[in-house]
Amino acid sequence: MATLSELGRRAKQASLELALAPTSTKDEALVTAADLLVERAEEILRANGEDLAQAQRAGASSTAADRLRLSAERVRSMANGLRQVAALPDPVGEVVEGWVRPNGLRIERVRVPLGVIGVIYENRPNVTSDAAGLCLKSGNVAFLRGSSAALSSNRAIAGVLREGFAKAGLPEDVLVLVEDTSYESAREFMRLRGTIDCLIPRGGPSLVQAVLDNATVPYVIDGDGNCHLYVDAAADLGMALSLLVNGKTQRPSVCNATESLVVHRDVAGAFLPAAAEALAGVRLVGDEAARQIVPTIEPATEEDWGKEYLDLTLSVRVVDDLSAAIAHVQRYSSGHTEAIVTRDLLAAQRFTREVDAAAVMVNASTRFTDGEQFGFGAEIGISTQKLHARGPMGLRELTTTKYIVTGNGQIRS
Amino acid sequence: MATLSELGRRAKQASLELALAPTSTKDEALVTAADLLVERAEEILRANGEDLAQAQRAGASSTAADRLRLSAERVRSMANGLRQVAALPDPVGEVVEGWVRPNGLRIERVRVPLGVIGVIYENRPNVTSDAAGLCLKSGNVAFLRGSSAALSSNRAIAGVLREGFAKAGLPEDVLVLVEDTSYESAREFMRLRGTIDCLIPRGGPSLVQAVLDNATVPYVIDGDGNCHLYVDAAADLGMALSLLVNGKTQRPSVCNATESLVVHRDVAGAFLPAAAEALAGVRLVGDEAARQIVPTIEPATEEDWGKEYLDLTLSVRVVDDLSAAIAHVQRYSSGHTEAIVTRDLLAAQRFTREVDAAAVMVNASTRFTDGEQFGFGAEIGISTQKLHARGPMGLRELTTTKYIVTGNGQIRS
Repeated sequence: MATLSELGRRAKQASLELALAPTSTKDEALVTAADLLVERAEEILRANGEDLAQAQRAGASSTAADRLRLSAERVRSMANGLRQVAALPDPVGEVVEGWVRPNGLRIERVRVPLGVIGVIYENRPNVTSDAAGLCLKSGNVAFLRGSSAALSSNRAIAGVLREGFAKAGLPEDVLVLVEDTSYESAREFMRLRGTIDCLIPRGGPSLVQAVLDNATVPYVIDGDGNCHLYVDAAADLGMALSLLVNGKTQRPSVCNATESLVVHRDVAGAFLPAAAEALAGVRLVGDEAARQIVPTIEPATEEDWGKEYLDLTLSVRVVDDLSAAIAHVQRYSSGHTEAIVTRDLLAAQRFTREVDAAAVMVNASTRFTDGEQFGFGAEIGISTQKLHARGPMGLRELTTTKYIVTGNGQIRS
Repeated sequence: MATLSELGRRAKQASLELALAPTSTKDEALVTAADLLVERAEEILRANGEDLAQAQRAGASSTAADRLRLSAERVRSMANGLRQVAALPDPVGEVVEGWVRPNGLRIERVRVPLGVIGVIYENRPNVTSDAAGLCLKSGNVAFLRGSSAALSSNRAIAGVLREGFAKAGLPEDVLVLVEDTSYESAREFMRLRGTIDCLIPRGGPSLVQAVLDNATVPYVIDGDGNCHLYVDAAADLGMALSLLVNGKTQRPSVCNATESLVVHRDVAGAFLPAAAEALAGVRLVGDEAARQIVPTIEPATEEDWGKEYLDLTLSVRVVDDLSAAIAHVQRYSSGHTEAIVTRDLLAAQRFTREVDAAAVMVNASTRFTDGEQFGFGAEIGISTQKLHARGPMGLRELTTTKYIVTGNGQIRS
């Protein structure tokens, strides 16, 4: 097995060639790899079967096994993902801005690949294909480190993709999979400064924490979403109900699901009983004021306000006014998505200005914070940090820029 | 003395108010503080005198004392810096882009302040004022940690600025100076996650290394510049000479000075003797081919090729062709600024495409990589990293963006 630094060297080397590859070559590589995935689905499913058998022996939960499991359908969907990415516009080469200085120097800021993108991820083997596709299209080498539980699947998928990319004329090492899945290797991976230009962790809070604690390479954090929906005094309560039910129940396990309901006291009496009815099956925890209106709401603890449940639980808070709503949201926000429902323009303005989050929604479901929903075609994650990228990250967020300055002999005096 | 975490708490609190301050208030604060700096120059110079006396007792070098020394003229120039920043456009609130989705959702990406910007810097006390001005204009609290050698000066300057800012109605804590200048405090400062939204080190390689080794807060590195000037076979040699002399000698101590000359062998025989003559007083080190043409060139070691001299030394390399030039530059580049001199359009295209640096110059001096020269009005540094900001950082690079999504009840299906 090659050492991590040897793999890194190969990734870096391949990145120099990939950065200069024309769009047509990259698109052909994606489509060729997609075809090959479907053609070789059986081989991939066989490898996946090994991982599943191993998981069963290790007594993995049914949720964990579900995340791991591939099917012919899922392999087709991975292939389609690659084809979709091939169809997206190439961000590389875009002239982001340009101007001419008084001395005649022409300055252009041009979009270029980052180089090598490290992705460290948990069970789902489809991430291998999804991440590889987005990295390749944006001109970056995908340096992937999945979990030990999915190693056979990842190895099979990566092998097929590398073959497909090479068929189109790119170096195989535009995708490099780390097969040493030990803890020590993960830590070393996060510290490959000079090799990894950007690290993106895809996984739960413990993975994110490991990156925060150990990484010395630049990274973008795809963090928690403790998303609030604030129902203002001037809200259309029918709309508020629909946004609440959608945000909480349409897909409760994802980061842009609604986790907390904040209600203006003027409408709490009318709204909360209707909300409790519409959310039958959802566990509600709330403050004293909410419980006086709907007695079946359980008492919330301090911990509840900051919690990303990722299941059918919702915290409920009644506030005196917009200021109190903003203060509550600001205090417990994870900086992902916060929403207000209101017809009051000034309230909407204040909420969007004062709430500090990657996305602030007015009269829309928190579930919309998503690369596809934003129109990016695909996403590699949702950044909850402020530097480099904030919010859904598409192809553009996998690039950097460089300045190209053209003169005819200008010197500084 | 307040603890670092208490100072951080104050900075964070003030950042909420400052982020919402209108441009007119921020500009008034800058101008008021500028006036106050001039008015209270004597007090500042007295404090600076204490630092200078202390430096003398400690046996500081004359260069160190020079960096530390203020004068009435330098205080006026600090004040003028603040006035210039007041006159620049406010980046906050800019709608960077916006579009409407097929379901009617309106998505806007809006520029907002980062929050609290930590700046850790070495001797020059004018950084206190310069950094405070740029942070304030971009809506960010300046959380400043200078060196112990400049503590009295920094305390006096910060005191006057805080008074000026408060006069205009902003909280005093939009500028917070850390007075504990111990090593432990610097380390703790770099680890104030949740308080510092972006850390910018302003200083030499050892400070940058300390940040790379210790920081857990997000940071932007203002790194070294081992800038190359490549004189192509198709260069106008008169122009090349002028760019070389300007790049090397106009201000050798700064990061965008030219440190290495790379010459195509076809023109080396004509160019190197002229270059050696024009660079009389500059120590030249070079490879064998260069030394055969100009025997006074001393032999270069491997270390020389990667070195940022910051003085009147230049390394000289003769290459066989453009590919060799690009390979040499790529290998030893610090990712700051690289330049080509040529009349050959295809050579210029290849060089700008293949060289990976914050700025690539064609027929212009490397000295132009600079916020003022780029037209940003001012700069807080030059980023040599790829995430967030790359190249000169002006007010815009001190901001982030948030998405504001406006609907009329859209839900996801």
